Amino acid sequence: VVESWSFLDTVESNFRPLVVIELAKGTKEETIEWFTKRIVDKKANGGAQLLIKPLLMEDGVENIYLVGASHLRLLLGAETVGLVKECSDNSMRAFTYSSRKTFKDFADDNHNFLTMAECQYIIKHELENLRAKNEKMIPGYPQVKLYPGKSIVRRLLTSGILVQIFPLHDREELKKLRHSWYGRVKVGYQPLDDIRCYFGETIALYFGFLEYFTFALIPMAVIGIPYYVFAWEDYDKYVMFATFNLLWSTVILEVWKRICAILTYRWGTLLMKRQFEEPRPGFHGVLGINPVTGREEPVYSSLKRQLRIYLVSLPFVCLCLYFSLYVMMIYFDLEQWALDYHKENESNVSSLMLYVPSIIYAVVIEIMNRIYRYAAEFLTSWENHRLESSYQNHLILKVLVFNFLNCFASLFYIAFVLFDMKLLRQSLATLLITSQILNQFAESLLPYWLQKRYNRRMKKRMCSQKTDRDLSIAEQVTLEKEMGTYLGTFDDYLELFLQFGYVSLFSCVYPLAAVFAVLNNITEIYSDALKMCRVYKRPFAEPAANIGVWQLAFETMSVISVVTNCILIGMSPQVDALFPDSKMDLVLTVALVEHLLLAIKFIMAFVIPDKPRDIQMKLAKLEFESLEALKRQVRSFQMQL
Amino acid sequence: VVESWSFLDTVESNFRPLVVIELAKGTKEETIEWFTKRIVDKKANGGAQLLIKPLLMEDGVENIYLVGASHLRLLLGAETVGLVKECSDNSMRAFTYSSRKTFKDFADDNHNFLTMAECQYIIKHELENLRAKNEKMIPGYPQVKLYPGKSIVRRLLTSGILVQIFPLHDREELKKLRHSWYGRVKVGYQPLDDIRCYFGETIALYFGFLEYFTFALIPMAVIGIPYYVFAWEDYDKYVMFATFNLLWSTVILEVWKRICAILTYRWGTLLMKRQFEEPRPGFHGVLGINPVTGREEPVYSSLKRQLRIYLVSLPFVCLCLYFSLYVMMIYFDLEQWALDYHKENESNVSSLMLYVPSIIYAVVIEIMNRIYRYAAEFLTSWENHRLESSYQNHLILKVLVFNFLNCFASLFYIAFVLFDMKLLRQSLATLLITSQILNQFAESLLPYWLQKRYNRRMKKRMCSQKTDRDLSIAEQVTLEKEMGTYLGTFDDYLELFLQFGYVSLFSCVYPLAAVFAVLNNITEIYSDALKMCRVYKRPFAEPAANIGVWQLAFETMSVISVVTNCILIGMSPQVDALFPDSKMDLVLTVALVEHLLLAIKFIMAFVIPDKPRDIQMKLAKLEFESLEALKRQVRSFQMQL
Repeated sequence: VVESWSFLDTVESNFRPLVVIELAKGTKEETIEWFTKRIVDKKANGGAQLLIKPLLMEDGVENIYLVGASHLRLLLGAETVGLVKECSDNSMRAFTYSSRKTFKDFADDNHNFLTMAECQYIIKHELENLRAKNEKMIPGYPQVKLYPGKSIVRRLLTSGILVQIFPLHDREELKKLRHSWYGRVKVGYQPLDDIRCYFGETIALYFGFLEYFTFALIPMAVIGIPYYVFAWEDYDKYVMFATFNLLWSTVILEVWKRICAILTYRWGTLLMKRQFEEPRPGFHGVLGINPVTGREEPVYSSLKRQLRIYLVSLPFVCLCLYFSLYVMMIYFDLEQWALDYHKENESNVSSLMLYVPSIIYAVVIEIMNRIYRYAAEFLTSWENHRLESSYQNHLILKVLVFNFLNCFASLFYIAFVLFDMKLLRQSLATLLITSQILNQFAESLLPYWLQKRYNRRMKKRMCSQKTDRDLSIAEQVTLEKEMGTYLGTFDDYLELFLQFGYVSLFSCVYPLAAVFAVLNNITEIYSDALKMCRVYKRPFAEPAANIGVWQLAFETMSVISVVTNCILIGMSPQVDALFPDSKMDLVLTVALVEHLLLAIKFIMAFVIPDKPRDIQMKLAKLEFESLEALKRQVRSFQMQL
Repeated sequence: VVESWSFLDTVESNFRPLVVIELAKGTKEETIEWFTKRIVDKKANGGAQLLIKPLLMEDGVENIYLVGASHLRLLLGAETVGLVKECSDNSMRAFTYSSRKTFKDFADDNHNFLTMAECQYIIKHELENLRAKNEKMIPGYPQVKLYPGKSIVRRLLTSGILVQIFPLHDREELKKLRHSWYGRVKVGYQPLDDIRCYFGETIALYFGFLEYFTFALIPMAVIGIPYYVFAWEDYDKYVMFATFNLLWSTVILEVWKRICAILTYRWGTLLMKRQFEEPRPGFHGVLGINPVTGREEPVYSSLKRQLRIYLVSLPFVCLCLYFSLYVMMIYFDLEQWALDYHKENESNVSSLMLYVPSIIYAVVIEIMNRIYRYAAEFLTSWENHRLESSYQNHLILKVLVFNFLNCFASLFYIAFVLFDMKLLRQSLATLLITSQILNQFAESLLPYWLQKRYNRRMKKRMCSQKTDRDLSIAEQVTLEKEMGTYLGTFDDYLELFLQFGYVSLFSCVYPLAAVFAVLNNITEIYSDALKMCRVYKRPFAEPAANIGVWQLAFETMSVISVVTNCILIGMSPQVDALFPDSKMDLVLTVALVEHLLLAIKFIMAFVIPDKPRDIQMKLAKLEFESLEALKRQVRSFQMQL
């Protein structure tokens, strides 16, 4: 029914499919016609001015559409979303169509000036900003209401008419990327710039952080090895190791900010102006006037949200924390009971019984984490945050606090209540190693295997001899639309965060933790890369200037680790022996050292600039230029008088 | 010689003197002619396009000039400096001449649209931005070199040809301000908006902070009184008082940020764009190209500056700190010696001798502070900072650290080494009260008295019967040019900072400190107001969006006070008695409570938003509007295609 409408160019050969739209099966003709009309309509008429083509699938059902855009349209869209690109003089500037000639590699016939990920981001932005004009409802679905200014795509998504929108993979590019990323075993850096070109800044920053963090852990691992090899137990060596760790962790977190600034400056996102945030799709409320935009949109009282947060969510989180502690106490009781049982009737069965409580506890922790995650997501979306960013922050905070307690409470209990360093070391090692193995399996290898099996089955059904490259668009879409959706970097960062906790919180008890972390992270890079390239649908690129709230989370962890390490060192028998006369002196010394370390940490964080000097200079130069331009404008106006 | 040149309007009656320029006596005619020509020249010719008039003094010497500007020129200048004014729809916007009609109270004949302080700020800005074109030197002074782009006024100032530039008082306005500010004894707020209109935002913010801080201390003072009256010594009451104090001090500092945002939003400085900072007058270096501006200017290696800071300044400051501690130890030795002497031969003379060490120490502290201040200023200017702000930050840091140690070291020593709470309370009271009295005297009353004497003498010499209002401009200038120069809010904030230290660091030992602080601050408001209105030359208004580095200083002090108060409470005999069996438990409990309090502090600082909701909304609205305007621009361009 629908042909490739276009007003800017109608040459069929120019159409390059970028984004796939899947409508629900049986969507009414009327709706499809209206929706596609809006997508191709001129900007002046309130359309998105994109290109759209129906995709004829084998089974004859016509519910999948390919969206593309003309080269010119994409360049204008790049200006709208505020993309920052490199100029011929190597400075970074916001792209504008009128100044396009000054940009590096720009040529009217160079269709690679914008990366495919950028094109897809622009199309996503244009689709999401396709807004209702005077429509009161989606044509064909009177129950799905619209109001002027409401994003049509978001409404279609929440009502289920639109199943999904996802960007297409570029099989050639992906193959190249796979090869340079994990295709050969090599020592060296990841191709971060290529990853960014293909997957966007958020994901590239995650891999950048993962790589940086792995390199940063190497000194700790190297220093940690002799402690294990020579079984050093001297207190002074532990103190040195812990002190090094604490200062090192501050330094690496500060230096990361600088590296992050270098990366995002090169990628243009450091300079990118924040777009005005629209309400998130799930946000609901009484229709009112937004005081900021003056537009009609759902309004929800901030007081009500605060009440929900403080009167429901907060108590619920506290209850969950309490429950987690309670479960932990049951675990210790079980452990004790198993030990007693083993002592009473010593047998093979009873010695096996010794492991049962740990296994049960590990399983229960995992189950609790999952259930809690759902509860947290439910609660946070019930809190009805207007902005996606605010939703994310509240969700991350809830999950972080619970995961932190759930994973580390037993270790804290062993360390500071039972005072059993042997058991602490043993539990730490078990928890760290098993969690790493489980994670890698559940996160990448299992989905990879499932995906592979599905692919094989699909390919067999379609045409058995074809290689990857010869797949038609229809076949590619059929394969990709069934792939899992990558839900963002949250879980990946969470894993790193917990690992950082295992490494730093009790580093003076188990120096080998850093070694395991390094080994894990090296394989993690590969398995995460595999996951991104093979398992999931291509995600939309998302510009990011830093790792956001995770920087704060890691910094908080490093502050907590100062406290725990100081206490652990203070409790070690070697240090104890140094103060034979007075326990008081010991405690006071430990407290003094702890405060000094904390003070040094804060001073270091304050003294190390967040951005390297040359980035600072470049930013200052841009600011200066824009001020000068403003002044020139004023001056030229004055001269006219 | 010089007449009132003007190209925009030459009507003599329009000339309103705003700023006074005093040249050195005997400045060459050639120089004066060149300088005044540059000041009145058109913008297009690189002039400042202001009005200037020589002032004929009684003694016939012609070295004083009055500078003014036409109404139109001031409006254009307001756009250049980026003033933010209120629009008719109550929103705040950057003033532009082309949109002038949309601003509240704007009328072409309303010459009060800009306050006098704003006009003077604009003139100062224009004078300072009067730059050398092709002149290689100041005409008439071949030894005073210039290079293209060098600020002429700054060069004239550093070479001594220009003695001073200062804004004139407005006798009528000042009288009104004086009356509403401190003219009548009243309970109520200061007229902050009037202060801001007359003296500018920096000074108004200081008085705002002083007032806010005084009000914030009242609850602490009220709660503190019964401790003194009923001589409460129960530990639980002290603990409650200290806990209240610690949380309260966090709250007041966070709330101040919000109040500050409200004030500066109303005054327009919250939205004001930061101007590009030019090098400070004292900055020197080899002539090179500034990488940011591309202009020719002195360049000084950042590495050299870092070396000077870390290899000279830092060790010097440490040495001074050590010296200050050394002097403190001598004081305690002297004290001991005086006590011994008094015990051996008890007499009237010997009991008087008991006070000698304290007096000597107080005097020495004062002398050391003064000498150190000079040394810090010398060192910081030797570090050769390019920017005034960076110079100020380094100076403030140096002075703060030393003053903190100098003032509180003896108290720390008494509290944590001698464990003498009686002596601590006594020293604290003595130090607090004497420093307050001394400060008020030295800072305001003495200069006021000196100024009054000078004024009387001058007036007598000029014309004995005239009242203030009838003074001619010449007489007014003669009086004002000899007044002292207000050197900024540094000393005033420092005084408040030390007072905050006295109140919070040992609050659980001496709850009455807050009472004295409140009493002092009430009189401080009056004496500072007197100082501003009567003693000093009118200072140039300086826009400010917050109290800058002082916020950080106060927050740091409140963190330190958590530590000291926890230790003090832990050391009190009442708390001691609660843990009869084990000192260990006591220390651990205290450490735990301290960490909890610190954690609560940080969480509170994180949770309380820095800006009130309505200010956030207004800022968001402005941001949204500018984004929309940008989009409209892009869209209208797209429609042309």
